Amino acid sequence: MALSTGDQSQAVRNGLRTKVLTLHSMNPRVRRVEYAVRGPIVQRALELEQELRQGVKKPFTEVIRANIGDAQAMGQRPITFLRQVLALCVNPDLLTSPSFPDDAKKRAERILQACGGHSLGAYSVSSGIQLIREDVAQYIERRDGGIPADPNNVFLSTGASDAIVTVLKLLVAGEGHTRTGVLIPIPQYPLYSATLAELGAVQVDYYLDEERAWALDVSELHRALCQARGHCHPRALCVINPGNPTGQVQTRECIEAVIRFAFEERLFLLADEVYQDNVYAAGSQFHSFKKVLMEMGPPYAGQQELASFHSTSKGYMGECGFRGGYVEVVNMDAAVQQQMLKLMSVRLCPPVPGQALLDLVVSPPAPTDPSFAQFQAERQAVLAELAAKAKLTEQVFNEAPGISCNPVQGAMYSFPRVQLPPRAVERAQELGLAPDMFFCLRLLEETGICVVPGSGFGQREGTYHFRMTILPPLEKLRLLLEKLSRFHAKFTLEYS
Amino acid sequence: MALSTGDQSQAVRNGLRTKVLTLHSMNPRVRRVEYAVRGPIVQRALELEQELRQGVKKPFTEVIRANIGDAQAMGQRPITFLRQVLALCVNPDLLTSPSFPDDAKKRAERILQACGGHSLGAYSVSSGIQLIREDVAQYIERRDGGIPADPNNVFLSTGASDAIVTVLKLLVAGEGHTRTGVLIPIPQYPLYSATLAELGAVQVDYYLDEERAWALDVSELHRALCQARGHCHPRALCVINPGNPTGQVQTRECIEAVIRFAFEERLFLLADEVYQDNVYAAGSQFHSFKKVLMEMGPPYAGQQELASFHSTSKGYMGECGFRGGYVEVVNMDAAVQQQMLKLMSVRLCPPVPGQALLDLVVSPPAPTDPSFAQFQAERQAVLAELAAKAKLTEQVFNEAPGISCNPVQGAMYSFPRVQLPPRAVERAQELGLAPDMFFCLRLLEETGICVVPGSGFGQREGTYHFRMTILPPLEKLRLLLEKLSRFHAKFTLEYS
Repeated sequence: MALSTGDQSQAVRNGLRTKVLTLHSMNPRVRRVEYAVRGPIVQRALELEQELRQGVKKPFTEVIRANIGDAQAMGQRPITFLRQVLALCVNPDLLTSPSFPDDAKKRAERILQACGGHSLGAYSVSSGIQLIREDVAQYIERRDGGIPADPNNVFLSTGASDAIVTVLKLLVAGEGHTRTGVLIPIPQYPLYSATLAELGAVQVDYYLDEERAWALDVSELHRALCQARGHCHPRALCVINPGNPTGQVQTRECIEAVIRFAFEERLFLLADEVYQDNVYAAGSQFHSFKKVLMEMGPPYAGQQELASFHSTSKGYMGECGFRGGYVEVVNMDAAVQQQMLKLMSVRLCPPVPGQALLDLVVSPPAPTDPSFAQFQAERQAVLAELAAKAKLTEQVFNEAPGISCNPVQGAMYSFPRVQLPPRAVERAQELGLAPDMFFCLRLLEETGICVVPGSGFGQREGTYHFRMTILPPLEKLRLLLEKLSRFHAKFTLEYS
Repeated sequence: MALSTGDQSQAVRNGLRTKVLTLHSMNPRVRRVEYAVRGPIVQRALELEQELRQGVKKPFTEVIRANIGDAQAMGQRPITFLRQVLALCVNPDLLTSPSFPDDAKKRAERILQACGGHSLGAYSVSSGIQLIREDVAQYIERRDGGIPADPNNVFLSTGASDAIVTVLKLLVAGEGHTRTGVLIPIPQYPLYSATLAELGAVQVDYYLDEERAWALDVSELHRALCQARGHCHPRALCVINPGNPTGQVQTRECIEAVIRFAFEERLFLLADEVYQDNVYAAGSQFHSFKKVLMEMGPPYAGQQELASFHSTSKGYMGECGFRGGYVEVVNMDAAVQQQMLKLMSVRLCPPVPGQALLDLVVSPPAPTDPSFAQFQAERQAVLAELAAKAKLTEQVFNEAPGISCNPVQGAMYSFPRVQLPPRAVERAQELGLAPDMFFCLRLLEETGICVVPGSGFGQREGTYHFRMTILPPLEKLRLLLEKLSRFHAKFTLEYS
């Protein structure tokens, strides 16, 4: 040790001492993590915003962050009832104020009664406030036409991401050829690839079918699974419905086929259903995996393991900043469920304001409540505008030569395919960039529009896409779509 | 595959199909995680509460959860100013209400201006709202007598736990004999042991000196390090100051010695300083690792890597439910810092209400503000009562035969040592329980007092302790301490 310390002192005198923690010595799994939704393109968008503030001249006056599903950042107003009840919970002195409706006060009192010390400032139990878990279970029952839900199978979380990571953590085991493999859709929401990389699990890609509006095809699941077996141990299947980034809404038949496949192949099912309120297309309807599973009866209903995730960040409320969410587990081994609770307890509890918000989302005002009319009107206005924006997006993109866009049946993104001229692809390769990253960076620099390249979500080799939210206000969205289409035409010309 | 499916179908007909995810097949690292603060004893406390509600007769009328530092659950009232500003942020319609002081309104407007869409409901950037990071940096500068802090080195988090886990994640690498080792104090706060187990890192124990009021002794660090080398690669040293569960406050000399040790042995320093506002004992003073490091000058100041953690959950405000916190990194490699930001971005952002709360904690009302007098009075009242409770705890326990308690210089727990008669130890072993777990369970069943056995934090072989918060209201705490002491006497008699 003396020698080594001496060497180090020498190095210090020469100013050569290296850090303990370097890119080289750090956790290699963390190094491999990628998360495109907030990746380099968003860093550049932040820089551009700063330059604009400093008065640097640009060909645009504002950066439009269409990279992330963040409704309120795009100007959507919070739902009045939700914020009234939350303000009352935060500052109960307001409970005597005449400026709040009675039902909002009752709801706040009910939530506070269920909090430690009657305060949002106390920790909750790690699985979340019992009353709220019960309300979530009732919500699920109503949603699923009366199929029972047990509050003991509901765990509140810090947004849906937190719960998804927790369930994936439970599933990861093995080394080398026996490492856990997890099937994820391509394109996917990059939380999945990032988490699997961090946990050292094997990502098994199954491709959604762009020609059929991004539908999930069970024969493709079979292909992916067969190919994966032998170099890992596939144990779980992730499904995102409605789709992110695809906007596809799965049919009931498809869901049944997926469940049969998971059952036969012994795969734990993770159903990311955070966009369950966001279905727009005529003929499309949200079917929960839980409901379909239960209606399939034996042997599926009583045995297939399932975790379904939901969130307060999406839907009509778009309360991303509060980080509310939950997971319902179905047919999970009781001892494993105890282990999950133990794991959650290390982080103490999900944010209590987010839990309170979730309670309001799962049990909104009833028709007889004073706040019902306004709540309903605000909710419908948001959903109707989202439906119009979904339609508009599809229309404008499909009118542009070289861009094709599947219908946005649900969720809040389009994932259009763009033709990129071979010379642009070559130029990107010279720059060491994915071709669609090159396109998106140029788009950002010249128009201020920030979208995420398809390569961040995964796509078939040789195809190029980007993900763009449909969240900007309708007229702004129209301008945006047109500007983007014109930029694509100009870009195509430039490299032809 | 056909055969295997056939076998499974047979098993299904026989009702023998096992779950995909079982205790046996799950992540073995997660299985090894332990977290005593919310462990089996707390599960039992919850059951007892339920039994009391159902009218089951018990030798007590309420369960007192002295297991966790949860001030508001113990009846501490939130600080008025914090909740006023938060309510205004949650429901900006209140900004026109005459019932809020002007400075609260100004603070709310300032925070909302810095939020996406001027709403707490938008995501923030993953490192936290820039304005709040700047306020945190200014707080650190004031705290450290003007030593500069760079907002770019401040990352907001979901409570301190989240940030601690993130930094530990970066540090974990290697396999077998080269696996990362992390030095942690014994007794420790079990977030550390739980996280290291989950990450597959090696926990290297160094013992605090109970005979010297739980002081940290650098020769013990040397012993622990030497012993660890050869079977792992020690790369980090965790320090908790003020101590949890010990209540010890480190001297400046001790901190200097720790920094020199970390520098010489090339260890990344993690300083858990969440109790920095909670110092009670005459002669004790909080010195931040950052300040001491900077004042030590070269070669330490410019090179020693350090991460310091703080939280909104403790201090005088006790806002645990909001999950606010931050980490300041010092001398961290720039590329690693980028990797940390990337890792945080996968979880999108810390809860925005918690960020807002943190902002108020780090920049409370100034003496010229209308809210100053009330804020200051409320703050002082909480801290003065905590100081009285710390003193009382030490007194009552030290008067009890067979219990000895070091001074509670800071933080919010006592960690008294209890003598357990040999026959009680034998009885515990027969039951397969740690002796102090046996004691704590009996205490809970007979008195309703819930404390955490020392074995959950670590202790020298053959010694027994428990951790108890000092948070119950003063008179209640007195009764509690006396009841606990009497129970110990009775327990000792029973097993003598």
